[in-house]
Amino acid sequence: MAYQGIDLLSTKAAGDDHGENSSYFDGWKAYDTNPFDLRHNRGGVIQMGLAENQLSLDLIEEWSKNHPEASICTPEGVSQFKRIANFQDYHGLPEFRKAMAQFMGQVRGGKATFDPDRVVMSGGATGAQETLAFCLANPGEAFLVPTPYYPAFDRDCCWRSGIKLLPIECHSFNDFRLTKEALVSAYDGARRQGISVKGILITNPSNPLGTITDRDTLAMLATFATEHRVHLVCDEIYAGSVFATPEYVSIAEVIERDVPWCNRDLIHVVYSLSKDFGLPGFRVGIIYSYNDAVVAAARRMSSFGLVSSQTQYFLARMLSDEEFIGRFLQESKCRLVARHERFTSGLREVGIGCLRGNAGLFSWMDLRRMLREKTARGGAGAVAGDRTPGEAERVARERRSTAASPGGSASATPTWTTRPWRSRSAGSTTSCASTSSAGSRPSAGPPIGSSASACRTTTTSAQPISPVHWRSCRRSPRWFAPPAD
Amino acid sequence: MAYQGIDLLSTKAAGDDHGENSSYFDGWKAYDTNPFDLRHNRGGVIQMGLAENQLSLDLIEEWSKNHPEASICTPEGVSQFKRIANFQDYHGLPEFRKAMAQFMGQVRGGKATFDPDRVVMSGGATGAQETLAFCLANPGEAFLVPTPYYPAFDRDCCWRSGIKLLPIECHSFNDFRLTKEALVSAYDGARRQGISVKGILITNPSNPLGTITDRDTLAMLATFATEHRVHLVCDEIYAGSVFATPEYVSIAEVIERDVPWCNRDLIHVVYSLSKDFGLPGFRVGIIYSYNDAVVAAARRMSSFGLVSSQTQYFLARMLSDEEFIGRFLQESKCRLVARHERFTSGLREVGIGCLRGNAGLFSWMDLRRMLREKTARGGAGAVAGDRTPGEAERVARERRSTAASPGGSASATPTWTTRPWRSRSAGSTTSCASTSSAGSRPSAGPPIGSSASACRTTTTSAQPISPVHWRSCRRSPRWFAPPAD
Repeated sequence: MAYQGIDLLSTKAAGDDHGENSSYFDGWKAYDTNPFDLRHNRGGVIQMGLAENQLSLDLIEEWSKNHPEASICTPEGVSQFKRIANFQDYHGLPEFRKAMAQFMGQVRGGKATFDPDRVVMSGGATGAQETLAFCLANPGEAFLVPTPYYPAFDRDCCWRSGIKLLPIECHSFNDFRLTKEALVSAYDGARRQGISVKGILITNPSNPLGTITDRDTLAMLATFATEHRVHLVCDEIYAGSVFATPEYVSIAEVIERDVPWCNRDLIHVVYSLSKDFGLPGFRVGIIYSYNDAVVAAARRMSSFGLVSSQTQYFLARMLSDEEFIGRFLQESKCRLVARHERFTSGLREVGIGCLRGNAGLFSWMDLRRMLREKTARGGAGAVAGDRTPGEAERVARERRSTAASPGGSASATPTWTTRPWRSRSAGSTTSCASTSSAGSRPSAGPPIGSSASACRTTTTSAQPISPVHWRSCRRSPRWFAPPAD
Repeated sequence: MAYQGIDLLSTKAAGDDHGENSSYFDGWKAYDTNPFDLRHNRGGVIQMGLAENQLSLDLIEEWSKNHPEASICTPEGVSQFKRIANFQDYHGLPEFRKAMAQFMGQVRGGKATFDPDRVVMSGGATGAQETLAFCLANPGEAFLVPTPYYPAFDRDCCWRSGIKLLPIECHSFNDFRLTKEALVSAYDGARRQGISVKGILITNPSNPLGTITDRDTLAMLATFATEHRVHLVCDEIYAGSVFATPEYVSIAEVIERDVPWCNRDLIHVVYSLSKDFGLPGFRVGIIYSYNDAVVAAARRMSSFGLVSSQTQYFLARMLSDEEFIGRFLQESKCRLVARHERFTSGLREVGIGCLRGNAGLFSWMDLRRMLREKTARGGAGAVAGDRTPGEAERVARERRSTAASPGGSASATPTWTTRPWRSRSAGSTTSCASTSSAGSRPSAGPPIGSSASACRTTTTSAQPISPVHWRSCRRSPRWFAPPAD
């Protein structure tokens, strides 16, 4: 779209480093222009390129109804209205920080503890990532990030801060495991190019793979960070959405138990309530740093994106209800595993296999056999998303009528090699799709003047539960009821 | 405070460009360490260096009680919970944008209209200013800003964006009026130094003077911007807090009526609900740009600081209640004028004069006769805040037991000249103090581990109403009741 007066803008604003011209957003645009409707447009596009968790919002809604004192807009809570509406201290409400720290520990199974005084607010995880980028690196300096990675990191971390993201090349033959060899290769490669590496950025659970990072790999990363004096940022915004074995391990647990000698000044966690709680609208992002100077600097920067005090107050009450939170997390996992099973079994029925995931809201699909184009290195039927932009998405969109995110948009490297996939994973990487429903961090939307429905779609009910959580999920009939969509 | 591991940070995070080491924040620190308490610490510091409007929050509280459907946490509104909590489109709720645009017109007396599709959200006015800085200028480029100016602009506009603010020197002899001569002088001076000037930034009503910019000056600014192809950013966050004549004029009205031929691509308004509504905790900032490209870029950047959808929903309902808003604005003005009169008459009783203000939450005090030090250019009893850092504040703190903001922190220039003050202003400029109560945009607070009470203090009841609004304020006994603090 051409604008009048664009020459009046800054280079950042006039350029395309915002990342919205990547193939990651193509599915959203397709959905915007031709949304699926069960009655009126059955040939339209279903938005599955976004990670939005609506599965358990009914539980929060119910809690809210039963706790009117948690709102400053009810007769029970309105006495707090003036105090809260006026509040703006960038430390946040003490009870909010305390509840958030307690909740972050609870989400991680009580195997790590968090200090309320290290909890820094941000405008969602989006703002948290940008704030950390501003705190930890200067323009031109780099963070290493394993591929495939969340495509909007290019916007969050780089657009305004001017830092770089450099890929750590991971491959399908070992399920994209982050090895020390790949890390060292990326680190040394950057240094050969004269680029200063300031840190490593990972998502655990992985967005977009839907898998978790094992304990040994986390210990290796913390060790590498200490030895090379580089930061380690762990985005754990899906920590409460691990729905099957293997068990989740947080970096917080690893530095407490496994590598207590590591340099904690280099360790930082990003969290949010957008995914595990399905509350992206509330814009609750958290930076949790073990470095005092980073806490101080990030807190000053948090002035640009504080959490509404109305929302802080509500969440402080809810998150401190440990009994409710425990039930919520359990039920949420049950519903996630059911949805995941339903989604992947549906794909299997039409011949699409997925990388085996156990967390998050994604499935990493293998669409190779549906693709027309070959990759530079690929054999028959193989594709690498980043070599054939748009092709994976074409399949997803045209043949399935879904808007998924092509692998190339996540900087996935060519995946067809002479080494076969292990039997437990169905095929090569091409595309990821959410197993819940729409709406993700990079809040794309319609152009000026159009409606605001861009990121939304309908959800369907959860169905069969996989064996992994079947027993625990039967605990309570009320909690086991499928969510109303 | 010294930190371990500070060498690991970015230059921005490790440096002091955050501006919190300015004298502007000294009063806050004094208050933090020795807060006034009526019973236990009568010799403590009263926080008057912050602009927080708590005068009319009882009206909003009452509206809220009477409109439970405006909350997603009440039986009447909870059916919207899932939709709203999940919402995250960075265009904002359509009803929020519509209500905000209508409200912005209503605040300006219906003399200007605002298009909902140009309303962009931000994390308070703090985030709005930073976003505009990122959109309009590159690092090293400058905006001109008349003195005295809101000290935290150095943080908001410059810290992370890397742009500069250059003063337009205004003087006490003409009540700090922004003249074309002063503007041209600043502009030419910057160019002589090889600095690219990208725009002009004003606050109207002025923070910290508490005065408004007249129509001719606004027209001059829009003309200058058009002729020199530089931006004009008008921060109008006190637009609804003009409590006495002369009448308020917004840049929006001026470009519609007075200089319709000006280049609108250069005009941008910042608004917020933190001041006129006294809702800083809700973090509602607005960028309103007449430039399509800026709207698009700012909207993308707004991902870093969206308004909580819970808060958007509540405000959409309230702001669209035009009858309530009309009554609120009227009553708010009555209470502001009463508080202003009470504050300035109290100062008069102890021999302190003020610049005559008619807007905002400030009084620009003349403390010259209480100062020990002389300025480089000053005569007996004269002081310029920026030449004698801490001196004006010492007086305010030690002799009055208040934490006010010294003039120098607002980049006020030396004010003692051979030209006398006009009789309507009581004296020279030294210090500003809020007439309402505590809490301001640059959300300062205690260090890690301490309590979060830094920005808060008590308010006192409003008393005599000045003649200006006396008649209109007697309209309704209920609305005329002094606020409960």
